[in-house]
Amino acid sequence: MNVGILGLGYWGPNLLRNFLGHKDVKKVYGCDVNPKRLKFIEGRFPEVQLTNDYNKMLENNNLDIVAISTPVATHYPLAKIALENGKNVWIEKPFTANSKEAEELIEIAEKKNLKIFVDHTFIYTGAVQKIKELVDTQTLGEILYYDSVRVNLGLFQHDINVIWDLACHDFSIMDYFINKKIIGVSAHGIANYYQHENLAHIAVYFENNCFAHFHVNWTSPIKIRRTLIGGKEKMLVWDDMLPTEKIKVYDCGVEIKTPEEMHNVLVQYRTGDMYSPKIIETEALSHGVSEFISAINENRKPLTNGLDGLRIVKILEAAEKSIKNKGTLIELL
Amino acid sequence: MNVGILGLGYWGPNLLRNFLGHKDVKKVYGCDVNPKRLKFIEGRFPEVQLTNDYNKMLENNNLDIVAISTPVATHYPLAKIALENGKNVWIEKPFTANSKEAEELIEIAEKKNLKIFVDHTFIYTGAVQKIKELVDTQTLGEILYYDSVRVNLGLFQHDINVIWDLACHDFSIMDYFINKKIIGVSAHGIANYYQHENLAHIAVYFENNCFAHFHVNWTSPIKIRRTLIGGKEKMLVWDDMLPTEKIKVYDCGVEIKTPEEMHNVLVQYRTGDMYSPKIIETEALSHGVSEFISAINENRKPLTNGLDGLRIVKILEAAEKSIKNKGTLIELL
Amino acid sequence: MNVGILGLGYWGPNLLRNFLGHKDVKKVYGCDVNPKRLKFIEGRFPEVQLTNDYNKMLENNNLDIVAISTPVATHYPLAKIALENGKNVWIEKPFTANSKEAEELIEIAEKKNLKIFVDHTFIYTGAVQKIKELVDTQTLGEILYYDSVRVNLGLFQHDINVIWDLACHDFSIMDYFINKKIIGVSAHGIANYYQHENLAHIAVYFENNCFAHFHVNWTSPIKIRRTLIGGKEKMLVWDDMLPTEKIKVYDCGVEIKTPEEMHNVLVQYRTGDMYSPKIIETEALSHGVSEFISAINENRKPLTNGLDGLRIVKILEAAEKSIKNKGTLIELL
Amino acid sequence: MNVGILGLGYWGPNLLRNFLGHKDVKKVYGCDVNPKRLKFIEGRFPEVQLTNDYNKMLENNNLDIVAISTPVATHYPLAKIALENGKNVWIEKPFTANSKEAEELIEIAEKKNLKIFVDHTFIYTGAVQKIKELVDTQTLGEILYYDSVRVNLGLFQHDINVIWDLACHDFSIMDYFINKKIIGVSAHGIANYYQHENLAHIAVYFENNCFAHFHVNWTSPIKIRRTLIGGKEKMLVWDDMLPTEKIKVYDCGVEIKTPEEMHNVLVQYRTGDMYSPKIIETEALSHGVSEFISAINENRKPLTNGLDGLRIVKILEAAEKSIKNKGTLIELL
Repeated sequence: MNVGILGLGYWGPNLLRNFLGHKDVKKVYGCDVNPKRLKFIEGRFPEVQLTNDYNKMLENNNLDIVAISTPVATHYPLAKIALENGKNVWIEKPFTANSKEAEELIEIAEKKNLKIFVDHTFIYTGAVQKIKELVDTQTLGEILYYDSVRVNLGLFQHDINVIWDLACHDFSIMDYFINKKIIGVSAHGIANYYQHENLAHIAVYFENNCFAHFHVNWTSPIKIRRTLIGGKEKMLVWDDMLPTEKIKVYDCGVEIKTPEEMHNVLVQYRTGDMYSPKIIETEALSHGVSEFISAINENRKPLTNGLDGLRIVKILEAAEKSIKNKGTLIELL
Repeated sequence: MNVGILGLGYWGPNLLRNFLGHKDVKKVYGCDVNPKRLKFIEGRFPEVQLTNDYNKMLENNNLDIVAISTPVATHYPLAKIALENGKNVWIEKPFTANSKEAEELIEIAEKKNLKIFVDHTFIYTGAVQKIKELVDTQTLGEILYYDSVRVNLGLFQHDINVIWDLACHDFSIMDYFINKKIIGVSAHGIANYYQHENLAHIAVYFENNCFAHFHVNWTSPIKIRRTLIGGKEKMLVWDDMLPTEKIKVYDCGVEIKTPEEMHNVLVQYRTGDMYSPKIIETEALSHGVSEFISAINENRKPLTNGLDGLRIVKILEAAEKSIKNKGTLIELL
Repeated sequence: MNVGILGLGYWGPNLLRNFLGHKDVKKVYGCDVNPKRLKFIEGRFPEVQLTNDYNKMLENNNLDIVAISTPVATHYPLAKIALENGKNVWIEKPFTANSKEAEELIEIAEKKNLKIFVDHTFIYTGAVQKIKELVDTQTLGEILYYDSVRVNLGLFQHDINVIWDLACHDFSIMDYFINKKIIGVSAHGIANYYQHENLAHIAVYFENNCFAHFHVNWTSPIKIRRTLIGGKEKMLVWDDMLPTEKIKVYDCGVEIKTPEEMHNVLVQYRTGDMYSPKIIETEALSHGVSEFISAINENRKPLTNGLDGLRIVKILEAAEKSIKNKGTLIELL
Repeated sequence: MNVGILGLGYWGPNLLRNFLGHKDVKKVYGCDVNPKRLKFIEGRFPEVQLTNDYNKMLENNNLDIVAISTPVATHYPLAKIALENGKNVWIEKPFTANSKEAEELIEIAEKKNLKIFVDHTFIYTGAVQKIKELVDTQTLGEILYYDSVRVNLGLFQHDINVIWDLACHDFSIMDYFINKKIIGVSAHGIANYYQHENLAHIAVYFENNCFAHFHVNWTSPIKIRRTLIGGKEKMLVWDDMLPTEKIKVYDCGVEIKTPEEMHNVLVQYRTGDMYSPKIIETEALSHGVSEFISAINENRKPLTNGLDGLRIVKILEAAEKSIKNKGTLIELL
């Protein structure tokens, strides 16, 4: 396969390296409007053919895949041209700037039997795959709550706020674990420095009393990447900042008894052993690339496809709407 | 002074020990309706005179202070009788079950020139006093955000939810640091086990774009007690679970420049040294007892008086109301 | 049983409280030469009969047990009188100031069928009991090395160096886990402030290539209490400073293969899951008191008896001797 | 300048990348006897001219610098030829397999006015430079003790034991900080898996009661990289495993008073604030390359030259000798 990569900024070189590393990839093309980036890429990846003209790339008949790693606002127009030119499309998260765009891209791809891969890259990490296994085997039991914190100092985005940038990751991870209908989304945030929020909290209500919360912050003095999952049987902590033992499973829980003769509930805690499963530490992006190429070869949707991207964009839209109304609950359609 | 302590459950013995330890306290009386507790207290504090009849205690002419450490719902009626009988009143947090009760108690005390002490006990810790100093000396600069997490497994309360139990602490601490008007409160939570919420998130909007958020949870597999304070000049992390170095002050921040010739903002991060000030580790409760007795002797309001208690109860009420409406912003009156 | 406690300094009150709490103990007597300590104890333990005359206590016919919590140099003379007066003897660690004294006390007790309990208190903690279980069930496999660090700022002893004070604990724990013959002891240390070493390192060689090392330090800026145990099958970390998850068992190891065709060894690492067993957190001292009283009742040696104390004193003596010779290996007799 | 790099194994590519990145370097040559490594390097560094014949490289008249990154036993013969052919020599640590070799290389370089750079790479890290600054400005006061732990699972070396591999780093760091005469070295270790020690403890005695200790281990279940430095004024902890705040300076210490009227010393502890200075996080190796090239240009010895390498080799030799004698103190000549 031949792959063209649009946008060679921060993330683009990782795409280059991983597509170059896949056995089915014959030739990789790169495109960026910034001549400095082209120069830089040329030095590091001499085998990549470079251009500053994205139309030329999108119309290149040799390409099987176009990977789009540009600002969010450009995802839709670029992906649309690519799909219309018969390319399978890899798009960095978030999928699109709104759900209407996402739906249209999905429809075009469907019609032309092309594949869309949305790069929810955390899905392909060893940690998320291990947690998914623990969820699917009912080791945790029914999920009662999901709580995620992703904060650190830095990396303001110019075009989007902290929700579209950071919470987008966590929404996709949550969505992978929890297969329940979302009732509504409520969000809070402040913009201390410019028009976009640098700090936000998002609450997601699911059916059956399940609840998720997300804290994202570009202005925290310390870096925290921690997710708690409260299950009926076991509870899990995923601390992605730890070099080892990122996932800990606690054999603990709460049981409620209401003996007839008592007017108070009797709350009992159970705490037992903890264990930390071994996690496979290969690069998530290489798994993503493999999954996309396999999906194309097998004519099936990849694990993180347009529909997954759309669901996340809908949550992002709802959060955005709620934040403007200081937390009003927004129902998901 | 003579002190009578009502309610000798979990916290009562600490009150006994600390009042007994104050040089101005001559005699301490204790009262509980549970004969087992009286028996237990008798063994540990032989010098305390005990009774199971709270009316007798409240009418005891020898008493200068009545300390109330009973379920929240009983705070108001017991405190009212005590005040009407001319006693100064120490009340455990939360002050009362609603703001109307709080206002009435404040009014009675005012009329009779009696003192109310609300035991927002964290205010008297070395950590909170050190942070207050850093805030008041403008070391942190203007506070942009306040973020607090207080979660662990255990200690369900029978009569109140996790907000009234745990967030009450954090509201009183925040209130001590931030002297800005609260615009509104929004809260989310779920009750997984019985009628009271075991997990909650509360957002507080202040004037001037200042924002606070609180995460409280009785069902977390790990114990976290961490507060981030984002100041314009410096940022602070208070991790109360650490045995030492609980407070860390980060010389870091964000600066925004918008050069005319650029259409994008230019975000610059500043990171410098961190330092961790020494904290004085004496028992908070002993400072609280001293402060109350000094306030009575000096005929002034104590540091944590009825008005402080009322402000916190108003936030609690608003959070309670918001949680029932899935996050609708409740304005504070 | 009636118990007399000699020495009511730092540790004495803990002995008082725990003996008072045992169901078989009828009356507790206390003795200290310092009138201030007697006054303090009187206030906290009104039921204890106090004296400043230790001869009177040692000759008291009512006593079944004498517990000695005085400076090490006095252990031998006091214990000797107690044994000669027919009392069972509890002695704080280290057992005696040298092995000759220890041997003599053991002999006297043997003749008179009295029990000696040496308070190697860590043996009775939940953590040590759990590790012992893991060792005895061969979960770790053969022990290859034992590495212990016990450092912090403070608590200089006036009469003994840091080895007799801190390493004594670790020697007794190691001795409980490792049932191999000690070949020799080598120790290093420095005395920066007065005649006694404030920092020391001790190496212990066992038969069969097993090795232990101890780092003790009264002048470390941070507190570390960490033991690594390298087993052939699994490896263990015991971090006693953690509030939870003190013990972690790592399913990791090293395997060596020397294929014929290769001139180099082939080292393979195995890393798997980690787990942290639940530890029972009751007070060690109460288990020690129970064990001693049971041993007396059942006419058997307690778990930490004079012979255990003697073995530890021999290691201490050897370390002391080696430290004076900058690490010369001292064989144990 | 033109640079030839001998040995393109684990560390070689880092040398390639850093020499290629220096502005004064015109051409880089590479050499390895393993054709697989040459193939690998060719793919990643197409601009490097490669050969499998080291004689050809050592005799190449174009070369100003030869960098030797081969097994220790080959350092001396290769460096000797390089020096005799008039090349400046960069040698990976440890400098040579024994001090005689080191002395001979230094002598040859001296005679021919060539420079030897020994890659004690930690010296060029931001952390070590910051600590050096704190030592040289007397912030810590006189150094009383130095304690280093470098343990983890893995990376057995085939040709050398854990002391020559890991402790070598720490000896060079200690040597950079402590300018006192070494009195003697004592070492302990065990070889659990093959002929070389996998675990070792080394004690170093300095004049004036200063003491250093090193714990190195290839078979620890957890990774620890921690150094404590006890100064008379302040104490320092360097934890190289932390992503931030690697260095912490504690304003704490011990003071001894011996009032005439007391027969006991009075030990007083002082604990104050802690602070963690910002560390510059650029790659150590690039600083090393710059220093070497500057030293050649300025005709001076580089910061880590042959004499530094020799001092470390002498400590390694002494440790090796002591370990064979179970800790006997070996004096340094």
